[in-house]
Amino acid sequence: MGRIEFWFEFASTYSYPAAMRIEALADEAGHDIVWKPFLLGPVFNSQQGLTDSPFNAFPVKGRYMWRDLARVCARAGLPLETPARFPQNGLLAARCTLALPEAARAAFVKAVYAANFADGALISEPAIVSRCIVAAGENPDAIMARAGDETIKAELKANTEEAMRRGVFGSPTFFADDGEMFWGNDRLEDAFDWLAAPLQIMSIGGTR
Amino acid sequence: MGRIEFWFEFASTYSYPAAMRIEALADEAGHDIVWKPFLLGPVFNSQQGLTDSPFNAFPVKGRYMWRDLARVCARAGLPLETPARFPQNGLLAARCTLALPEAARAAFVKAVYAANFADGALISEPAIVSRCIVAAGENPDAIMARAGDETIKAELKANTEEAMRRGVFGSPTFFADDGEMFWGNDRLEDAFDWLAAPLQIMSIGGTR
Repeated sequence: MGRIEFWFEFASTYSYPAAMRIEALADEAGHDIVWKPFLLGPVFNSQQGLTDSPFNAFPVKGRYMWRDLARVCARAGLPLETPARFPQNGLLAARCTLALPEAARAAFVKAVYAANFADGALISEPAIVSRCIVAAGENPDAIMARAGDETIKAELKANTEEAMRRGVFGSPTFFADDGEMFWGNDRLEDAFDWLAAPLQIMSIGGTR
Repeated sequence: MGRIEFWFEFASTYSYPAAMRIEALADEAGHDIVWKPFLLGPVFNSQQGLTDSPFNAFPVKGRYMWRDLARVCARAGLPLETPARFPQNGLLAARCTLALPEAARAAFVKAVYAANFADGALISEPAIVSRCIVAAGENPDAIMARAGDETIKAELKANTEEAMRRGVFGSPTFFADDGEMFWGNDRLEDAFDWLAAPLQIMSIGGTR
């Protein structure tokens, strides 16, 4: 049936529950997921002049976010531990996502998010990323080597630029196949509802 | 049964659907609402150094917000029009909320949000605020006069300071009677669920 684009940065906290939940929702509705890794650092910097996560730059928001994330994960039945570092450097994992065959991406992405947020592991470490590649049924040496190719580096850079061009300002972001954009784990169900039947919006911003 | 504190700034976009929805949810569950107007300007300025709404300061977030708000309002069956100005100055309306008897506050607050977001009226105008006081069944001259009292001005100032002390960084914010904080229209149902039965949180941030 439809297609949903899932744009994600591995460091992003609320992208963890979204990544763990999206497959079941897509399978249930018979939709395909397009996995779109990108880097949030350049986006935050370019759009808001930030050099750190807004949750670190504004501690009052960070304190609330960790508590809220704990509630969200408790509701979703997901384990949550303090990450080894926040935000983590997700560059290697993002490149490996693109280096993997499409069929292996879902398992890899979930393994990396679990390493970050359920295991408290350092996802910038090649040994941790390798373990996630193995969990996805692929050969870590081959994928790691491919992740260093210029074409993969360029693809990740192009993803980040495309994200900004399309108005992405955070992670997770979802696009329905008509281009409608949804931001945040809280909007995942709405994005699937939209794929099934776009809302009739008669007010401001309404185009249909 | 329980009590939910509803902290709100009249300029805030997502506080509009929250204000229009909260009474039905509270009534259904048999909970009381404590109406807590405060000013978001000093909060944004003190915590994030902002001198305007973040939706204006960062246009990419603003563009998404207006579209998302249109979807949220469409789902909730609420009309939405372009406000006369964004953000509006809600000082007079906030003071009038505190000048009103508690029983009249719900109707007044909803009338002001509707004036701002459904009618596109200027809620800084005394004539508009007076109309909202009438809608709440009270005498506008008496309430307007009371809104200028030093005690009312001091109460609004104290609300804003209390909000910051308790970690509020946006509107709408809800507190359950055990102090659990919820931010955003998206968390309104969660706040009521929490009042009925707090989640068991075993992960980070867990205190129970």
